[in-house]
Amino acid sequence: MRSSFPYLIVVTGLLTALATMSVCAQEPIAPIEPPAEIHMAKSALGKMLYFDPRLSKSGYLSCNSCHNLAMGGTDNLTTSIGHGWQQGPINSPTVLNSSLNLAQFWDGRAADLKEQAGGPIANPKEMASSHALAIDVLKSIPDYVTQFRLTFGDATINIDRVTDAIAEFEKTLVTPGSRFDQWLLGDADALTDNELAGYQLFKLSGCVACHNGAAVGGNTYQKMGLVAPYQTDNPSTGRFAVTGKDADRFMFKVPTLRNVELTYPYFHDGAAKTLSDAVDTMGKIQLGKAFSEPGNEQIVAFLKTLTGVLPEVTLPQLPPSAADTPQPQPFE
Amino acid sequence: MRSSFPYLIVVTGLLTALATMSVCAQEPIAPIEPPAEIHMAKSALGKMLYFDPRLSKSGYLSCNSCHNLAMGGTDNLTTSIGHGWQQGPINSPTVLNSSLNLAQFWDGRAADLKEQAGGPIANPKEMASSHALAIDVLKSIPDYVTQFRLTFGDATINIDRVTDAIAEFEKTLVTPGSRFDQWLLGDADALTDNELAGYQLFKLSGCVACHNGAAVGGNTYQKMGLVAPYQTDNPSTGRFAVTGKDADRFMFKVPTLRNVELTYPYFHDGAAKTLSDAVDTMGKIQLGKAFSEPGNEQIVAFLKTLTGVLPEVTLPQLPPSAADTPQPQPFE
Repeated sequence: MRSSFPYLIVVTGLLTALATMSVCAQEPIAPIEPPAEIHMAKSALGKMLYFDPRLSKSGYLSCNSCHNLAMGGTDNLTTSIGHGWQQGPINSPTVLNSSLNLAQFWDGRAADLKEQAGGPIANPKEMASSHALAIDVLKSIPDYVTQFRLTFGDATINIDRVTDAIAEFEKTLVTPGSRFDQWLLGDADALTDNELAGYQLFKLSGCVACHNGAAVGGNTYQKMGLVAPYQTDNPSTGRFAVTGKDADRFMFKVPTLRNVELTYPYFHDGAAKTLSDAVDTMGKIQLGKAFSEPGNEQIVAFLKTLTGVLPEVTLPQLPPSAADTPQPQPFE
Repeated sequence: MRSSFPYLIVVTGLLTALATMSVCAQEPIAPIEPPAEIHMAKSALGKMLYFDPRLSKSGYLSCNSCHNLAMGGTDNLTTSIGHGWQQGPINSPTVLNSSLNLAQFWDGRAADLKEQAGGPIANPKEMASSHALAIDVLKSIPDYVTQFRLTFGDATINIDRVTDAIAEFEKTLVTPGSRFDQWLLGDADALTDNELAGYQLFKLSGCVACHNGAAVGGNTYQKMGLVAPYQTDNPSTGRFAVTGKDADRFMFKVPTLRNVELTYPYFHDGAAKTLSDAVDTMGKIQLGKAFSEPGNEQIVAFLKTLTGVLPEVTLPQLPPSAADTPQPQPFE
């Protein structure tokens, strides 16, 4: 006779899953799931590349310079600083949970993380290198050659593999475990009454029409200034720059609200310095609504429950350059 | 009757210690010791401050920008990059094992790590903040206030405590366990014959006259260009800038050779790009000696055995700024 024990586990598991689904199914926000199916060697190599400033012309800027993993995956600046201290055109979005976005960059011009990763390396206003130079640098460093062989089966180093590895590392940068997700998963005590009231207001006011799904955003493009024009000096036109269609003017990817407490300042122009400012502006230009001060405070209290368990990142030890490694050129 | 077991441990320990001493006593280089008597709360706070770019005016530069713990505690640039992309006057020394230096900076103008840490924050060519502004920033961040209270017993935040905490973290950044130290501690197989030959040449040629002790340097000032003048465009005058004494012109703190494989480029002007170049130049201007190519290679092979076990550093999660935190001013 077979033991009924495995059967019990299956039934219990099923009931738990159903209970979870029934909680979550009622809500427009889904819990963040832990990373799965990560290629560990590729991710480890990707972490080295993410932190390696030798992918920049100056030898000084890395992916982590603007997407700082000590600071919610952003630089917390209005717009970013690039090669030669150039002022960037737009606010750096967080790398945390960026794997959940429908596309990358504010205007969605990169289809995925892999395509995104190649952009800043060769952008003269950002890392100011070229793919050819970055690859020459990596090829000259024996330890990198070994790592690529270990990861991909042969020693070929090209931009496809570099960006593939960086994207794999970035896939690990998700933040499950927020208090809001604990609540979604059935822990009724995870949120205070005030935070819950904020969530109700967030839903009832319509914020959730754009900020939904696991990332609480990131899954649609929406017009910045839907019911009232957004006043800004920032020249970005959003999706229009990608599609050339008039209808896409000022359409931007809805940013994720996960860890939003850490990713200030807000909007593509970084104009909102605090969550309170951001909620106020969103109410006015997207919903045609002036939130009361207590209402604004409640929504902000809810938003702070979206801060998850941040990935614990140990700094990689980067392999030293070799005698024939192209020299960094910070001042040329 | 008392057990003889503890007695045996004492005797065995004593014999081991004597054996170790007898090995080390013959050598002018001592093994690096693991960090001891670290105030853990202070060090944890110091790590946050070390990585926090809000100590700079721009909100972009941190201690780790020029003393990058992913890159041997340096920036691997000829001279460093400061606020507004200003070109720094001198090569950034490594923070690794810097607690072993007789003083800090190339010219020894700071007595210790604590005094050093205050320098770059307020240097207009480096982080370009002021102590007053940096303290205002920290005071405005509730989590920092809590950390200071936890660490120091009350919530006072001042530059003395800030630099004390950074220095405590830096004391943890030592690198015991190199292959050379394994050899010093009695493992005869830790070095190859070629590396040992390099060490013998390093001693016999006189390199060890200045590069000795646990840090293999860092414990004296010496003239750059002892037997032949050093040709450089770098205007630094070394100790002279501190003491005003003619005898101190071009006297620089001897740099540590620990992890020297990772801390290129070399010399106060960063002019030597490779270890081979550095050994060649040192032979000529300090010892009046032209090393043969095999001799140079042997010394370089020895120097690479000085790379220790690098500290495993998990990125801190920096607490978010508050509404009244002074804003970063990268472009003003």
